[in-house]
Amino acid sequence: MNLKVILSVLGTLLRFLGLMMVVPLLLAFYYHESPFPFLVGICLAEVTGIYLWLRYKSDDDWKLREAFAIVALSWLAAMFFGAIPFIVEGISPLNAFFETMSGFTTTGASILDDIENHSRSILFWRSMIQWIGGMGIIVLFIAILPKLSVAGRQLFRAEAPGPTEDKIKPRIRDTAKILWMVYVVLSALQIAALHLAGMSTYDAVTHTFTTMATGGFSPYVLGIAAFDSPLIEAIITLFMFIAGANFALLYRTLYTDHKIILKDEEFKFYTAVVVVASAILILALRYGTGADPLTCLRYSVFQVVSLLTTTGFASTDFNVWPDSSRIVLLLVMFIGGCAGSTAGGPKAIRILLLLKYARWELFRSIHPKAVKPIKFNRKTVPENVMQETVSFVVIYFLIFMTSIFLISLMGVDILTSITASITTLGNIGPGFGLVGPMASFNAMPELVKVVLIANMWIGRLEVFTVIVMFVPEFWKK
Amino acid sequence: MNLKVILSVLGTLLRFLGLMMVVPLLLAFYYHESPFPFLVGICLAEVTGIYLWLRYKSDDDWKLREAFAIVALSWLAAMFFGAIPFIVEGISPLNAFFETMSGFTTTGASILDDIENHSRSILFWRSMIQWIGGMGIIVLFIAILPKLSVAGRQLFRAEAPGPTEDKIKPRIRDTAKILWMVYVVLSALQIAALHLAGMSTYDAVTHTFTTMATGGFSPYVLGIAAFDSPLIEAIITLFMFIAGANFALLYRTLYTDHKIILKDEEFKFYTAVVVVASAILILALRYGTGADPLTCLRYSVFQVVSLLTTTGFASTDFNVWPDSSRIVLLLVMFIGGCAGSTAGGPKAIRILLLLKYARWELFRSIHPKAVKPIKFNRKTVPENVMQETVSFVVIYFLIFMTSIFLISLMGVDILTSITASITTLGNIGPGFGLVGPMASFNAMPELVKVVLIANMWIGRLEVFTVIVMFVPEFWKK
Repeated sequence: MNLKVILSVLGTLLRFLGLMMVVPLLLAFYYHESPFPFLVGICLAEVTGIYLWLRYKSDDDWKLREAFAIVALSWLAAMFFGAIPFIVEGISPLNAFFETMSGFTTTGASILDDIENHSRSILFWRSMIQWIGGMGIIVLFIAILPKLSVAGRQLFRAEAPGPTEDKIKPRIRDTAKILWMVYVVLSALQIAALHLAGMSTYDAVTHTFTTMATGGFSPYVLGIAAFDSPLIEAIITLFMFIAGANFALLYRTLYTDHKIILKDEEFKFYTAVVVVASAILILALRYGTGADPLTCLRYSVFQVVSLLTTTGFASTDFNVWPDSSRIVLLLVMFIGGCAGSTAGGPKAIRILLLLKYARWELFRSIHPKAVKPIKFNRKTVPENVMQETVSFVVIYFLIFMTSIFLISLMGVDILTSITASITTLGNIGPGFGLVGPMASFNAMPELVKVVLIANMWIGRLEVFTVIVMFVPEFWKK
Repeated sequence: MNLKVILSVLGTLLRFLGLMMVVPLLLAFYYHESPFPFLVGICLAEVTGIYLWLRYKSDDDWKLREAFAIVALSWLAAMFFGAIPFIVEGISPLNAFFETMSGFTTTGASILDDIENHSRSILFWRSMIQWIGGMGIIVLFIAILPKLSVAGRQLFRAEAPGPTEDKIKPRIRDTAKILWMVYVVLSALQIAALHLAGMSTYDAVTHTFTTMATGGFSPYVLGIAAFDSPLIEAIITLFMFIAGANFALLYRTLYTDHKIILKDEEFKFYTAVVVVASAILILALRYGTGADPLTCLRYSVFQVVSLLTTTGFASTDFNVWPDSSRIVLLLVMFIGGCAGSTAGGPKAIRILLLLKYARWELFRSIHPKAVKPIKFNRKTVPENVMQETVSFVVIYFLIFMTSIFLISLMGVDILTSITASITTLGNIGPGFGLVGPMASFNAMPELVKVVLIANMWIGRLEVFTVIVMFVPEFWKK
């Protein structure tokens, strides 16, 4: 393990993180709010970053293991240093780490009970870290830093969501640039749309940050329900849906083949889930609460898209819905958005591949000698992709079960434990019970918060990148 | 699809089932209770059985598909005709089907609110069907009927629990005979032990039936708690543990190699789960309820073994335990006993294989080019066994999720839906919430009962045998 190269990259990351805090710093001056949270943050990040950079400056190339370690530790470092403004503002360190990890991983679970009491610049920073985390800290690096363009492929694999790497261009740096470009353009479009729908610039920017990142933070306790506007909800629904789609696919649809998105099996599956789950939820809500059909439609589609894409916005307190409605939301949490999107969760493609696998085995139990490969988008699925998918789901469920177990043991009720676990592991945000959309995670015991922080970190890096470091072989030569 | 051969075998099954009802009939005479439930049952089963047998008498051999259909339909037929005595006694048909399916599949979930009000002969029949279902209706057939000894292997595979067929003898009929022999001898031992511990013969026999079958029915509402005897609990714990072990392995340990059981990876894993889960539960109970250590030990070990082996006996109302204790019980429900035992659930061997698979993939993500097969009991696991295991778990979870979904949609709360689903699909018996060990399933809506009956049927036949019939290719030539 080449520690030098790891620390060197971490140094670069911290210098970069410090630089990003200049944005909320300027905003603090603009709003005449205290600049100290960001000044302290910038100083600590820059001093540590420059020290690491000068001390461990390294031109060594790295191998697979170093790539895993760099990515996993980068996200931890981002949590520690990104939390500094919150800590300076008076939030306890554990809570600040929770909030920051929830931000970078685009989870959107919050420990703030009194969101509106915090300064606008702090809440801007809170939304901004989701936007940065959405497309990926490392992907951003690869796009910007020349050094990483060479050996960045392994980093890209270790951070980018999805079982297959989607190359748009032969050079990984060009791919990363295009992904960020699509992301920036879509964000600009959403800001414009929300502004036209009547939101202030501040609200439009902060909510766009957390929509396009499928993050779900809002500067208001009530979230999207604070606006109570069907038009705003429709715009956000549309952009959440887009943010949950594969960005490489979006790019290809725009620039090479306009029909490619309609042929993509994952996108079709993802769309089908939205349609079917919304339809069922509309019926369940209508039958379960007696609300009028239009109201059911309005809240159902928004909530299904919000939780399927792992955004976690709430346009109403769905925690008070009857269980016949909540179950629809709980189940979509186990699917997630598309690979190559900013969404979390196990990802639609993996669920689809598992369904195909099960279907294939059923066929084989009737025709044991038949040779018929599993296909995806008309191509045979390579065996190693199938194996990785299966192991991903197995490890994902093991972590899920372990998390439920630990949280319940610490005295939290089982339903809250289940939903708090899936909502953090899937980078969604709110759950049911004590962690509903209008509640905060602040009431959870401290050790539970630590488990949930670990869930968010493990979930965002799609399990392997973190878990692999706990395998003894990882540390052997 | 050769319907003739299927109906012919079903006819044989019904004649056989009628014959078995003679035992509770004799008991009814002995206890001066009404013999009508059994007389009607015997008549209907025999008349239908003899009609089918004469009408469709067939010496045709069957293929894989017919074997699936025979086994799946045999269990349905057993439910319909085995329920007749209950219906004649005044229980509604749906409830009677639920109780009988719960019996044959050794689930042990009951719709009887007033168990003690039913006649002793009826309650004996209720326990007896668990004992018959425990080792398998079809395995019993294969052992007894000469015809099935030839083409029985496919039936055996379609009914016997576990991913691998465990041949003790080259001829499947000999294997079936040995399995039943081990089963009968162990049952005799348990009856003697319980009798010596102070149980009446009736209680000893009925509870042995449902222990060795890992069924969990008791002629008392309070179940094992009715006796409040640590000695009886200890005996039952021991025999539940034995019943959850692989019977072929038990036979080999007794007759060929005494040490083989200690080398078996599945048995070691199964034992480890018992020890670790009990230890955690003791601590959780001690901490969560403040009960004295001996009481915690007593209830913990019993309840862990009862739910891990999918028996479902309760020596106390574990539904009132705090969630920090209940979570331990909930998680062991997802493991189950060993393959080749009478236990249900996904089976210890499958969980172990999945763990090995995930571990293997983690190793591979560090050493992508290394060649290192997955081993079980020092042999390389064949690829098709691994594929079957994975598909089993995928389909099992899909059914589990579908069941939770349907039950919640019908207005049952989520925790009850989750535990009612796993407890029927895993053939366990009691759950939490409304379906706790001291409650009955009678309060569930009628459609929910239908879903639960399907779960028990699908779970007992380990998913494929039933689900395969819903695949279009199954019905094509």
